[in-house]
Amino acid sequence: MADYTFYTNPMSRGQIVRWALHEAGSDYAQVLVDWKAKSAAFLAANPMGKVPTLIHHAEDGDRVVTEAAAICLYLAEMHPEAGLLPNDAEMADYYRWTFFAAGPLDQAITSRSFKFEPTPEQEGMAGWGNFDRTITTLDGHLSKVEWICGDRFTMADVYVGSSVDFGLNFGILPPLPSFVAFAERCQARQGYKAAKAVDNTLIAQMKK
Amino acid sequence: MADYTFYTNPMSRGQIVRWALHEAGSDYAQVLVDWKAKSAAFLAANPMGKVPTLIHHAEDGDRVVTEAAAICLYLAEMHPEAGLLPNDAEMADYYRWTFFAAGPLDQAITSRSFKFEPTPEQEGMAGWGNFDRTITTLDGHLSKVEWICGDRFTMADVYVGSSVDFGLNFGILPPLPSFVAFAERCQARQGYKAAKAVDNTLIAQMKK
Repeated sequence: MADYTFYTNPMSRGQIVRWALHEAGSDYAQVLVDWKAKSAAFLAANPMGKVPTLIHHAEDGDRVVTEAAAICLYLAEMHPEAGLLPNDAEMADYYRWTFFAAGPLDQAITSRSFKFEPTPEQEGMAGWGNFDRTITTLDGHLSKVEWICGDRFTMADVYVGSSVDFGLNFGILPPLPSFVAFAERCQARQGYKAAKAVDNTLIAQMKK
Repeated sequence: MADYTFYTNPMSRGQIVRWALHEAGSDYAQVLVDWKAKSAAFLAANPMGKVPTLIHHAEDGDRVVTEAAAICLYLAEMHPEAGLLPNDAEMADYYRWTFFAAGPLDQAITSRSFKFEPTPEQEGMAGWGNFDRTITTLDGHLSKVEWICGDRFTMADVYVGSSVDFGLNFGILPPLPSFVAFAERCQARQGYKAAKAVDNTLIAQMKK
């Protein structure tokens, strides 16, 4: 039995986790989730009915992890030999930007694609404030560094890089030089290439 | 000089971080942020112009951490002696529910307070799916455990507990027995009481 059962769909945030699984060098078995007929085992693991959902078959029992960013950070912890964890000096950026992407950036992208923009009064309550400020803040950081934590690739790059890559591909994020260059560095990773090859093959099969 | 500079406002998500600072037993100096006159130092640290923002004056230089959940997890790492970090078996729940609260739960609460509900077509794209499913999922977990990771308080409880506490106080979350009992366990913590005493005093002063 593989160490992990990975519930996914190739056209979903599951792409983020597949990249993370490959970067971690983990042994996983995938289960494709049919939106229209979700299995009882899947819904028991994640009542949200969302992919990606990961089950880690650990020695002390099964552990469920949901939320793409949570799965990324969990995998980094379970595979320290992959070198994706931050050191002490990198930890502030590691957590800051992972939660920035999971919170403000995701909300800015989602609300823009839903054509919902907060009013000036709502901006103070909205975690992302507004779309432009979110973009400018991320651009400020990516203009200064090669990777999220500085000059070394960590698991934070898998999650933030996936958000930037997705936002650019769907034309929601503006093609700022810092965004495009960061996405290209991510795309050059062996783990990225291996993971996308699997998802792209699955997508092509689904379209037949 | 204190170890941390804590930019906050008592009527903000800064309350979450103040509780985390007290649980970690950290030495911090607060700077209250005036919404209408944000200082250059503050905006340089966080171009989002949001509180809470934390600056850690570490031996190797200043480190900025933003996003309330990120600050919580960072403080747990910097203060291992406080016992707020998860052990190996607790790690899945620790990351899962912290990101669940920072993502789906925050978005469900925010969108409900903005009177924005995703359409059935949008639910598949929205990280929180819909309000009811998010509530039911969290209720399912909190009905089974005393604390987020099982029977022991960790930093995940500060963040998830703050979200539940806030949602109940503002009448956005339904007063389900599991939510109310979890909030009461949180409110009984010494760190919670000490932190809220400071913020409530500041709020009373602002209303004079």
